[in-house]
Amino acid sequence: MSFQFDTATATTPLGGGLYDTPVEDGWDINGNANGGYLLALMTQAMRTECERPHPVSVSMHYLSPAPAGGATTQVEVVKSGRRLATVVGTMQRDGKDIVRSIGTFGDIDSSLGPQHNTLDVLDLPAYEDCPARAFSGGAPIGLGSRLAVRLHPDDVGFATNNPTGRAEVRGWFAFADHRPVDTLALLLAADAFPPVMFNLYGMLGWVPTIEFTVHVRGVPAPGPIACRFRSNAVQGGFWEEDGEMWDSQGQLVAMSRQLALVPLAQTQ
Amino acid sequence: MSFQFDTATATTPLGGGLYDTPVEDGWDINGNANGGYLLALMTQAMRTECERPHPVSVSMHYLSPAPAGGATTQVEVVKSGRRLATVVGTMQRDGKDIVRSIGTFGDIDSSLGPQHNTLDVLDLPAYEDCPARAFSGGAPIGLGSRLAVRLHPDDVGFATNNPTGRAEVRGWFAFADHRPVDTLALLLAADAFPPVMFNLYGMLGWVPTIEFTVHVRGVPAPGPIACRFRSNAVQGGFWEEDGEMWDSQGQLVAMSRQLALVPLAQTQ
Repeated sequence: MSFQFDTATATTPLGGGLYDTPVEDGWDINGNANGGYLLALMTQAMRTECERPHPVSVSMHYLSPAPAGGATTQVEVVKSGRRLATVVGTMQRDGKDIVRSIGTFGDIDSSLGPQHNTLDVLDLPAYEDCPARAFSGGAPIGLGSRLAVRLHPDDVGFATNNPTGRAEVRGWFAFADHRPVDTLALLLAADAFPPVMFNLYGMLGWVPTIEFTVHVRGVPAPGPIACRFRSNAVQGGFWEEDGEMWDSQGQLVAMSRQLALVPLAQTQ
Repeated sequence: MSFQFDTATATTPLGGGLYDTPVEDGWDINGNANGGYLLALMTQAMRTECERPHPVSVSMHYLSPAPAGGATTQVEVVKSGRRLATVVGTMQRDGKDIVRSIGTFGDIDSSLGPQHNTLDVLDLPAYEDCPARAFSGGAPIGLGSRLAVRLHPDDVGFATNNPTGRAEVRGWFAFADHRPVDTLALLLAADAFPPVMFNLYGMLGWVPTIEFTVHVRGVPAPGPIACRFRSNAVQGGFWEEDGEMWDSQGQLVAMSRQLALVPLAQTQ
């Protein structure tokens, strides 16, 4: 038996840096593939091409929504150094860009070098004491059946039309089929939670991401990943969302940031 | 009379999305062009090609150091929408990549939409009460003569071999020739301060940036820009640095984040 995420991120080299990267059904929000899933899918092709184990930093710009279906990714290794390699990628369907990305790949060993961590420690209730992510709003959400995301009980107000007023969502990330969370899966974790804007303005529907960057900082130990997402600045029709992810050993394993568009009509 | 920064970021279209983007002398740290200057230079070509006024989000990966000299930038507009355009760029010299970038461009009006800002307000002493950035360490630093950066008196310990122990550097950004700071210049501001690592481990010399993203959030009002840079996570031989920039009216005008390599030899 293979895990669902491995099947969904399987890529086939076609030569010349071109990869077959089909967008699998069931990793969507209302029919469009989740951005974290697309990032992981592209990253699989990118890290294969540069022959490095881990994504260290990957950035994506989303250009068009992607329902399930065929897609290819053109990958180019633009630098291959001793320690790190840099790769650019373009995912397309029918000649139209879906995503453009750039990333740096290499080995990650969080025990190396000096350590200085001043992030607030994330104090989550136990996994079993957190409610499952409420995928509501009418339309079926494929992603919900693949994941076993749990939310902090204090952050679920948005789902019952009682936004907390804090632009924050905390919770646990895990796969429904118990696949271990590796550095590739952290890219999915970074985009698997409800937008924190929902706890300011209620469930706004689709919140288009412009730019999304994930820094992978450690190889996760077994167990679910504790995640915190916050926004500190909503203005000008844009908002940023910062994510921090820790493994079961309390190790920081990833940081993320995205810039997204505020759906203006619903918040004014 | 033209301002130095305008001369240094002048680009000439050569057709087909190719731009002449010479790296001007005097915007360097020990002979290599500053990363923020390179970002601004490329962004000038990118925003010209897509005919949008402001960089909304730009990300760069640095591939090789660039002393002053000739360079070209190949730009491609990969999406041109009603509100935003997305552009990729490659800066080269002698066929070798210097920088790869991807960015989204458009209009910025920070008064639009809902406002929600939870960043700590930066409380800097007045510009004239802050010491000039100490560009020391022996070698001449070209950038120092172009800028009129002032540092918070509490954050200058690194320069006298008394690191503060806090991974933070605050200060004012301005040009020496009093050029107004616009959205292009914010990209330079985001990389014009000493690495915050210096206040943990002393002056380490060159700290190589892997990835650098700037989100421009407002068009600056006249006056120097108040800036704060911090690192929350040093581990695994990598560190992140987060920047926040405000104008004289207290408006958040930019947020930045970079992932960089720790010079391991000097900190162990």
